[in-house]
Amino acid sequence: MDSAERIDRDIETLAGPDYTVSDEAIRRYAYTDAYRRTLDYFVRELESLGFEVDEDAVGTLVARNRPRGEPVFGVGSHCDSNRNGGRYDGTMGVVTALEVCRLNAERGLDLPLQLISFLEEEGSGFGQMLLGSRIVAQRVTEDDLRERFRSIDDGRSFWEHAADAGHAPDRWRECAHILDDLTGWIEMHIEQARVLQDTGNRIGLVTAIAGYVHADVVVHGRGDHAGATPMDFRLDPTLVLAETAIELERLANEAGQGTVGTIGEIEIDPGLINAIASEVRFSLDIRGPVEDAYGGVARDIAAFAERAATARGMTADYRERQTIPPTPMDVRIVDALEAAARTTGEPYMRMHSGAAHDTMCVADRVPTAMVFVPCKDGISHHPDEDADPADAALAAEIILNAIQALA
Amino acid sequence: MDSAERIDRDIETLAGPDYTVSDEAIRRYAYTDAYRRTLDYFVRELESLGFEVDEDAVGTLVARNRPRGEPVFGVGSHCDSNRNGGRYDGTMGVVTALEVCRLNAERGLDLPLQLISFLEEEGSGFGQMLLGSRIVAQRVTEDDLRERFRSIDDGRSFWEHAADAGHAPDRWRECAHILDDLTGWIEMHIEQARVLQDTGNRIGLVTAIAGYVHADVVVHGRGDHAGATPMDFRLDPTLVLAETAIELERLANEAGQGTVGTIGEIEIDPGLINAIASEVRFSLDIRGPVEDAYGGVARDIAAFAERAATARGMTADYRERQTIPPTPMDVRIVDALEAAARTTGEPYMRMHSGAAHDTMCVADRVPTAMVFVPCKDGISHHPDEDADPADAALAAEIILNAIQALA
Repeated sequence: MDSAERIDRDIETLAGPDYTVSDEAIRRYAYTDAYRRTLDYFVRELESLGFEVDEDAVGTLVARNRPRGEPVFGVGSHCDSNRNGGRYDGTMGVVTALEVCRLNAERGLDLPLQLISFLEEEGSGFGQMLLGSRIVAQRVTEDDLRERFRSIDDGRSFWEHAADAGHAPDRWRECAHILDDLTGWIEMHIEQARVLQDTGNRIGLVTAIAGYVHADVVVHGRGDHAGATPMDFRLDPTLVLAETAIELERLANEAGQGTVGTIGEIEIDPGLINAIASEVRFSLDIRGPVEDAYGGVARDIAAFAERAATARGMTADYRERQTIPPTPMDVRIVDALEAAARTTGEPYMRMHSGAAHDTMCVADRVPTAMVFVPCKDGISHHPDEDADPADAALAAEIILNAIQALA
Repeated sequence: MDSAERIDRDIETLAGPDYTVSDEAIRRYAYTDAYRRTLDYFVRELESLGFEVDEDAVGTLVARNRPRGEPVFGVGSHCDSNRNGGRYDGTMGVVTALEVCRLNAERGLDLPLQLISFLEEEGSGFGQMLLGSRIVAQRVTEDDLRERFRSIDDGRSFWEHAADAGHAPDRWRECAHILDDLTGWIEMHIEQARVLQDTGNRIGLVTAIAGYVHADVVVHGRGDHAGATPMDFRLDPTLVLAETAIELERLANEAGQGTVGTIGEIEIDPGLINAIASEVRFSLDIRGPVEDAYGGVARDIAAFAERAATARGMTADYRERQTIPPTPMDVRIVDALEAAARTTGEPYMRMHSGAAHDTMCVADRVPTAMVFVPCKDGISHHPDEDADPADAALAAEIILNAIQALA
């Protein structure tokens, strides 16, 4: 069996009924039986390679071929899915990391490796994205874990669920130590967009993970009768939404450098065919790998929306939800990946990641990089998600060779 | 007591707890006890003026001061409310018609009058606007009444509810006869917009009720990750919405002649901050008193939306829901109302009605007109609805004098 066949077998196995809590999609999240069986699959495979497999205080899977305290190179991703998910997002990254470990053994390289499978990247269990890696990075509080983060299914706390699953959440601060011995970290992931497919590349070498601004704009108009109110008597907030949407596109294009801007949520009140809206809320998702560029768009669009509202006799509030800075990848690791990719002769490109990944929580402490493979038509977070095990095999080859070159 | 005081007393009485099924708003619709008591109030008042009061086969209130078969001039409106309504919409029109009957008696004019209070103008009982007047105009089918039109509260048919309330829905075709003897018809109504208030007029003389096109546009884009998808890889349907909203405003302004266009409903799928929408649906409400003008806007905006989608590599479907032609008012009656208004020395204006009214269902068979009075800040269909009984008294005076002049 070659790498692609092994990866295919892993993926197909983990798409089986034992590994999902839904039969309509892959739905897998921490502390369910389906998740436990998924970890156990990796435990068995890694133990068969001679790895020592551990779980940290909240259940993060950590497998090493060296004793604790010795330097190791990290590979991995997450194996939870979103609630209406496919078989590739996250899981293919852990499977590919496992394949790196297999090739390392098969070829007798004996490179020092540590595989990590983070939990709850998708937030399906407790509504908190990147939860496992944020715990490792200590970007949560004990109160979050004890009280605030609660199961979507039953409302009980993360803490209770972790304890019931046999873990020791009271020792969550120790989770930070799973990064202690890492000399580097490479995560493989499906791209979740169409850039690789549409440019004909099999491999994406991530140079940075985008930072973003999440915000809302609320435009306060005046609800009036759609038939009885002449055009020049109106305070219609949908027109401020319209002008802002077009300006956001213009600003993002003008900023360039990978900046993107999206209005993904629109709420119109009262939302009746024969009523001019009294209020419209819309979300802003503005991202990019270059903080000056996307941050400028966020500032400009906030000012624009306020100006556009004022020009029409209305008001608009800009309300920031969350701001995350970009995460640059480590130049030395990216260069090593590029050298390894070039050697294969297969088409690859440098790119940034617009989506967030666990690697963002590793990068503060460890030099990191990411490798993307195409996913069909950019579809992700959906049962139709599709990716090619041969691309993952190529990624495993490149990652292994890069680690070897860096060693 | 003068007219304004009597109108005020009527309005305040009918805003009491006996006359609404909700204590948070006026909520009054056919076949409820609250509605029955409202009709009974008018029955008592009209009988005290010597009117003969009847209800037709579905419960439309008809009161006359002449025997059936003799010509009479019609006045009236509706006394049901919307489900979160105020005390003025409809009810103030019936109350003003009652005041016309009172003044007619008080002044010994003995003009031949018939008051009609239509039921279910607002659609609060069965989700069907103008239902009572459409039954009178025979713009429904027996199947509608027996099967299709069902109570919002309990799902039982209009037919069952009407029969349970003691009416004879199997004789619904006879309802048409309540218009047989009318030589004319004048409905008074609150304006439901701000034109009278903002132009400082106390009376609006309606020259036409707007026709309209109700339609939806569905733009088919491509759902993609908002972070991971570069600007030039997107098929974002919200931008077609934006361009169409701005063009709709431009087209309506350009068409003039009272044409208005509104996007009141927006549905975005999937509606997540970090997802480019796969599809957007928005409604179009395009109205005006001049069919060529608003009809042209409807045609142009449908074509524009399709072009705007195509230009961005997407498709858009235009789906018409309903088209209603404008209803011109009778020139002779409007002129008589204007002469009467001029005599009062109070400020008035000619205008069209952007909102639909029962009078649309009367106008095919009877020369009709409408009189508007201001409502505060244009607020309607809301507990905050407010109007001045003195304006209604002025309207009653003008209506009575016009009827006298036409006699």
